[in-house]
Amino acid sequence: MTDSWVNETLYAAWGQRFRVLRELARVRSEFQDIMVFESETHGRVMLLDGVVQITEADEFVYQEMLTHVPLLAHGAARRVLIIGAGDGGVLRRVLQHGTVERAVMVEIDGEVIRLAKEHLPGIAGDAWSDPRAEVIVGDGIDYVRQAPAASFDVVIVDSTDPIGVGEALFTDEFYANCARLLSARGLVVNQCGVPFMQADELRETSLRRRKSFPDVFAYVAAVPTYVGGFMTLGWAAKDTALRQVEAAEIRRRAAAAGILGATRYWTPEIHVGAFNLPPYIAEQLPD
Amino acid sequence: MTDSWVNETLYAAWGQRFRVLRELARVRSEFQDIMVFESETHGRVMLLDGVVQITEADEFVYQEMLTHVPLLAHGAARRVLIIGAGDGGVLRRVLQHGTVERAVMVEIDGEVIRLAKEHLPGIAGDAWSDPRAEVIVGDGIDYVRQAPAASFDVVIVDSTDPIGVGEALFTDEFYANCARLLSARGLVVNQCGVPFMQADELRETSLRRRKSFPDVFAYVAAVPTYVGGFMTLGWAAKDTALRQVEAAEIRRRAAAAGILGATRYWTPEIHVGAFNLPPYIAEQLPD
Repeated sequence: MTDSWVNETLYAAWGQRFRVLRELARVRSEFQDIMVFESETHGRVMLLDGVVQITEADEFVYQEMLTHVPLLAHGAARRVLIIGAGDGGVLRRVLQHGTVERAVMVEIDGEVIRLAKEHLPGIAGDAWSDPRAEVIVGDGIDYVRQAPAASFDVVIVDSTDPIGVGEALFTDEFYANCARLLSARGLVVNQCGVPFMQADELRETSLRRRKSFPDVFAYVAAVPTYVGGFMTLGWAAKDTALRQVEAAEIRRRAAAAGILGATRYWTPEIHVGAFNLPPYIAEQLPD
Repeated sequence: MTDSWVNETLYAAWGQRFRVLRELARVRSEFQDIMVFESETHGRVMLLDGVVQITEADEFVYQEMLTHVPLLAHGAARRVLIIGAGDGGVLRRVLQHGTVERAVMVEIDGEVIRLAKEHLPGIAGDAWSDPRAEVIVGDGIDYVRQAPAASFDVVIVDSTDPIGVGEALFTDEFYANCARLLSARGLVVNQCGVPFMQADELRETSLRRRKSFPDVFAYVAAVPTYVGGFMTLGWAAKDTALRQVEAAEIRRRAAAAGILGATRYWTPEIHVGAFNLPPYIAEQLPD
């Protein structure tokens, strides 16, 4: 008898489970176990090493907050570097901004891209063929090491947690290289887990970001399938003013960039409010 | 072989599961199945009819937002009616407000109170013996039907979802009685589920609240074990101004009431920001 449920294995003793309508792919790539299935409740779901990365039903929450917040906080981002995000959802959101001239995406695992194109084509939409996009299957660590100084305005790191293949994306060296390749008002955001379950992740990576950036903070998003309350997105910027832009100005920039009214979670007010952290999360940030 | 996991059964095809260290109680009361267990990750957990009601680890999120937001939005709440909330956690938070002179709690199921006192004593703390508290084991529907006009300033409904025993707390008659028993600037809040999974619940109950209150809205909280993104708390007030109080004034009131700095999720900024709804939630509210 086959088990028709998939249990997420991110935490040993608590987690979510999905009833599976149909398994679509189960691949052992050079880097990780990849699984794609059709769920009864959330459309198609992709897992890496047993951890939910994306579902068709709720991907908009994470992608909108990971993309629109840094781009609109910056206000004039022309060149964007995306590390990871093999499903193409961040790339699509970045390219929605009319201000963006070039988006480079570096994903280490070509199998993730291949399976996303085959089974989750709606996530990236036309992004793969946008002339402004450059998609590289390669090591993000090497890419940031070799990128010229001041060659990007925003870096978005959409990685797995700092275990397995994603671990090297949370090192001092990685953040130092990000600081170097960013322009004068540049910033990097990256996912920092769900602090109610993984408090160490925000605290420890914030201390590392602190070594290379003057302004280190975090903002929150309530992502339905990153279960456990707010997830945090780490913020490391060269200019403290970027996270203090008021909602009216964010709204103006969003209208100019062409994304106002095109979102289902992000709004200018939610953008600004996401930096107001509950005390149980704020206490994880360095003083 | 015993199964050491508890699967929440709120949704048929998706949900959370807990590894169980020890089962503490399993009771069939007059109204529902009650289970209390010690989890590996969230301390003790209480389920009603298979649905997680409270865990020791994250109860603060829900209780703080369900209590402090209406009381501080009102600003001069002396008399508070609590329907449900048999664990006593809302009662404890209400009594933290030095401004409160009387708190009446009406819980239909005496077994919930008994089991909470036995197995979850930290949730209510000393609230049960506070001279301002009156705890009634009885039917909240009857209580609001018979309560004198203008006898309370705030009503807090901490019920199960509108299925089973909680269903009658979401009717036109219930809200009409709440409007009658509330004072001139009174308001009622109640839990309206997780709209990503239960969009109907917010939409349908908002339409009902609309028949008795001029200002119907909702606010959000990211409760770790009410899985599926933001949960919504329904808002029905006699005065639209109550949800437009600015953070500085909320902060002043919180300091006066004695709760500033005593919270782990609620802050004045989170209070104000919780009314900024993501579009996917806002679209469930009546025009």
